[in-house]
Amino acid sequence: MASPSATPAYRRLSVEERRTQLLGAALSLFAHRAPKDVSLDDVAEAAGVSRPLVYRYFPGGKQQLYEAALRSAADELELCFAEVQSGPLTRRLARALDRYLAFVDQHDAGFSALLQGGSVAETSRTTAIVDEVRRAAAEQILVHLQVADPGPRLRLMVRTWIAAVEAASLIWLDEDKQPALPVLRDWLVDHLVALLTATAATDEQTARVVKSVLALESAEGAAGVLARRVIPVVSEAAHLL
Amino acid sequence: MASPSATPAYRRLSVEERRTQLLGAALSLFAHRAPKDVSLDDVAEAAGVSRPLVYRYFPGGKQQLYEAALRSAADELELCFAEVQSGPLTRRLARALDRYLAFVDQHDAGFSALLQGGSVAETSRTTAIVDEVRRAAAEQILVHLQVADPGPRLRLMVRTWIAAVEAASLIWLDEDKQPALPVLRDWLVDHLVALLTATAATDEQTARVVKSVLALESAEGAAGVLARRVIPVVSEAAHLL
Repeated sequence: MASPSATPAYRRLSVEERRTQLLGAALSLFAHRAPKDVSLDDVAEAAGVSRPLVYRYFPGGKQQLYEAALRSAADELELCFAEVQSGPLTRRLARALDRYLAFVDQHDAGFSALLQGGSVAETSRTTAIVDEVRRAAAEQILVHLQVADPGPRLRLMVRTWIAAVEAASLIWLDEDKQPALPVLRDWLVDHLVALLTATAATDEQTARVVKSVLALESAEGAAGVLARRVIPVVSEAAHLL
Repeated sequence: MASPSATPAYRRLSVEERRTQLLGAALSLFAHRAPKDVSLDDVAEAAGVSRPLVYRYFPGGKQQLYEAALRSAADELELCFAEVQSGPLTRRLARALDRYLAFVDQHDAGFSALLQGGSVAETSRTTAIVDEVRRAAAEQILVHLQVADPGPRLRLMVRTWIAAVEAASLIWLDEDKQPALPVLRDWLVDHLVALLTATAATDEQTARVVKSVLALESAEGAAGVLARRVIPVVSEAAHLL
């Protein structure tokens, strides 16, 4: 139900402002509860407006509101991996992952409900939106790697890493947000460096990418720290060389 | 409709044999078509029996048949990573992945439809079965790593790799089964070796695991080949050390 104080505010907002306000209220509710546990009354109450007003903006009801909230979340997520094309790759990745993981942390229950499947709100449209986020993220990583025409091995590698980031985020939520976010972020950066290096072993295009990526890294950066820490681990494996 | 020749066969099969036959027919149909494109008539025809007979065994209709077929596929998938606990890890992984990827190849459309979300047949029960396969695979990998009490970092690593294998399989199907299966298998083995090594850099338990894993590897094996191929790739990164 509308609270008495909401009515004057209603008159002041433009259509676009009102829509944005309702979406914001919906997104914060969907962020922490499964879609089935959010009612239109909850959204109306959170926004301080009446239920009919919510229906006027979203005549398709909860499913339409859910998809619109997902659409706005997807736009936010797609921006995560957009990053200035300069400096070491590991530093760019760390900043992108900080944004992505902050989103996961802030929308925990909604993120799990959307991606773990079997959700009541899941449709071919929501699946398409999620897939679009994955593809946009992979495109951004390829831009960072300065590859205009990626071959199948490099495409597979980047898309698999994006899937691994998403899976690790879900597992992190499932494991009660352990380890701490900066540890998770650094590990995901190391994961890409390791995967790039392993893929370079059998793919020439990736080998060229790794060469130019490592040239920009510094000894104090993530790749330098990783390299120095890996040496003692593998030093006992001289029998492999 | 039942074909005339099916009736005598019907009398000869036991209840269990008949159930197995119907499940087999259903699984091969669900393997190559989306669940919505498979009818009970198709299953009856493929098994050479009448539609009422299919309903007698699966009174819940298509959804029950789909879940039973998924259950039997899950049992098969869970066995993929069960492997004798001896010899180099990379050789065990290659055999397990050969079985897993052969399953993906043989059930391509069904595998995609089940895992890509938004499927009409997806319910919380099918999601639970899929999740059980992932957990069983992760448990098997931890057994191969000889870790009885895995910490959060090692658990996260193994579960993330399992998710990466699943994602890479879906991407491989999406990319028209490119690259060739043995290339995909070897790359997934390299992926785990690289991920173990990178995780060992910041987790002591993983570092101990890597040490004992590498001790069992040989120069001719996957880890040896990977190590020798990685050296020239990173040799130009002396500025990081």
